[in-house]
Amino acid sequence: MKGTGTETTANTTSPLGIAAKGYAVDSASDPFKLFNFERRMPAVDDVVIRIHYCGICHTDIHQVYNEWQRSKYPMVPGHEITGVVEQVGSSVKHFRAGDHAGVGCMVDSCRKCHICKKDTEQNCADSCLTYNSTELDKVTPTYGGYSNLIIVKEHFVCKIPKNLPLDAAAPLLCAGITTYSPLRRYKVDKHTQLGIVGLGGLGHIGVKLGAAMGAHVTVISTSESKRDDAMKLGAKAFLVSKDDEQMKTAANSLDLIIDTVSAPHDVAPLLNLLKFEGVYCAVGAPTKPLEIGAFTLLMKRPTITGSLIGGMKETQEMLDFCGKHNITCDIEKIEATPETIKTAYDRTVKADVKYRFVLDILNAFK
Amino acid sequence: MKGTGTETTANTTSPLGIAAKGYAVDSASDPFKLFNFERRMPAVDDVVIRIHYCGICHTDIHQVYNEWQRSKYPMVPGHEITGVVEQVGSSVKHFRAGDHAGVGCMVDSCRKCHICKKDTEQNCADSCLTYNSTELDKVTPTYGGYSNLIIVKEHFVCKIPKNLPLDAAAPLLCAGITTYSPLRRYKVDKHTQLGIVGLGGLGHIGVKLGAAMGAHVTVISTSESKRDDAMKLGAKAFLVSKDDEQMKTAANSLDLIIDTVSAPHDVAPLLNLLKFEGVYCAVGAPTKPLEIGAFTLLMKRPTITGSLIGGMKETQEMLDFCGKHNITCDIEKIEATPETIKTAYDRTVKADVKYRFVLDILNAFK
Repeated sequence: MKGTGTETTANTTSPLGIAAKGYAVDSASDPFKLFNFERRMPAVDDVVIRIHYCGICHTDIHQVYNEWQRSKYPMVPGHEITGVVEQVGSSVKHFRAGDHAGVGCMVDSCRKCHICKKDTEQNCADSCLTYNSTELDKVTPTYGGYSNLIIVKEHFVCKIPKNLPLDAAAPLLCAGITTYSPLRRYKVDKHTQLGIVGLGGLGHIGVKLGAAMGAHVTVISTSESKRDDAMKLGAKAFLVSKDDEQMKTAANSLDLIIDTVSAPHDVAPLLNLLKFEGVYCAVGAPTKPLEIGAFTLLMKRPTITGSLIGGMKETQEMLDFCGKHNITCDIEKIEATPETIKTAYDRTVKADVKYRFVLDILNAFK
Repeated sequence: MKGTGTETTANTTSPLGIAAKGYAVDSASDPFKLFNFERRMPAVDDVVIRIHYCGICHTDIHQVYNEWQRSKYPMVPGHEITGVVEQVGSSVKHFRAGDHAGVGCMVDSCRKCHICKKDTEQNCADSCLTYNSTELDKVTPTYGGYSNLIIVKEHFVCKIPKNLPLDAAAPLLCAGITTYSPLRRYKVDKHTQLGIVGLGGLGHIGVKLGAAMGAHVTVISTSESKRDDAMKLGAKAFLVSKDDEQMKTAANSLDLIIDTVSAPHDVAPLLNLLKFEGVYCAVGAPTKPLEIGAFTLLMKRPTITGSLIGGMKETQEMLDFCGKHNITCDIEKIEATPETIKTAYDRTVKADVKYRFVLDILNAFK
């Protein structure tokens, strides 16, 4: 599996493949290395994208370190991908060379089931993730965006509006759609009292999107220190979740809460903020189950739900919305080397980033 | 507080009250006794009802034994009340003497807040419960249906369709509306794959109502022994919740689950039965919080919610629906004495009743 020296090569090669290179890990304890592999030859419905930028999502870190016990190696992470279309297959309708393109967390799905037909391909039982997954054949491994090029079915490629910079737009492909989808699903508008729990990679873009939809946004955070940033991003109010008095005063005030926190936490005080029939939507995935009191369910009859990224149609809609409102993520752009990625991972784990690291891929593999 | 001998009398009397009698307990450990008290003089918007029957709900038992730590004594339980209108105030529009009337779990609410205006008075912060509560003045205690007459604001009185027997209709006022409300809220019809968890007082009427709405009803029970009864009541399928294989086979098959179980139980296997975007609605109130895994929320994006009886408009609608479909509860009718009530409580705790005890009140206080 491992290459010689500091390089590593894929264990499967195709005589018809296109040479690609990226950064991969060979195990949960190995460092990133240069990885030479082959992308499939483009089919008629494929788009070939030269990757310019790739965001670092906390999911990458969970996967690289095998924290969810489902990692396969070698692994090239990355699912917040932006770049430029280099080539398209003959049946591709909506892309041509030179277009700004984005690829998010998935690169295929069955496209036949009732879930796919509802434009919620992300929840298809056969959806193919952008990395640490396989193609629909359940055999061919997928490799993500810490690499110089990617070949993706047209249906799973998005257009990036020309007015958005490709670097700061990259995290929209995951962090953006993850928060946009429930905001739309629950019809956020100027009448909405919206709560965003956690001001990280997801939360900060959730605030921007919610504010752009006209909502009155309240950020709920464990730390008073985030108040000023929250306000700058577009929030109108701020609650320190550990301050019982503040939380009590705000009881029954919110229509919708998007909870972006992935660490185990008590949701009871959050549910107490909901109005009668309000909606609580988890977009993070704490390892411990949420504990929901039955009386809260009976008395408040809330909708408690969750949301996973978004479908392709909705992701394009999100990007168009961001183009119209000139919304991108706040990022720290870094050159892409095995060492800088490691540093970025360490800082992300400590929440020491405002708000997303984005790797400069184009220059790394020039 | 206590009366002499085996009787007990109310601690508040009004010179303008109407003499009433019922069965009350003076504490969590005292037996039921005859209780002489006064109902308020009817106001212009009041309906005076001669009580004929009153169901025994498990809630009565929790309250009598102070299991929720919020009991006030003396307590006259009972909130599944049917009877005949004896007298109406001058502004009462929809009732007259001789009408068959029903009173459920509440007898007033603020009627001004946005919750009341949505016809969900049961969730009003100031709703007045039928017993172990107070009138809107927050002082005058309310006494329930184990008594010979009750005086209730017209808005909180329902009409019982003439074709329904008053005894078997009594539990509709709580068990019926508790299951009917979420069935309507989530638009159950012939396309609905409906699951009813638990086949007790609530569950059995939920099956009848769901079947009458055209749904394909699956009963989910811990006990195989309830299969035949479930089918007789109108279910089309039956799952033993402890049989992992059965539960696994039925994964992703249900649109809506009404969980009537009040004992702490694991909801994860139930949520696994839901289709993508299915609805789980708790109508019981286990003392332990429900534990909901985040991945279930993200992958299935269900609606997890609860429901508390129903509003007055909806309760009347439920009764009319039951009239039209000739639906009542399966009951064991018993004479009302302190001793029979005790026996019925003991048997209800053991789930040894099919499916509701109903007290014959009229003959008890003749």
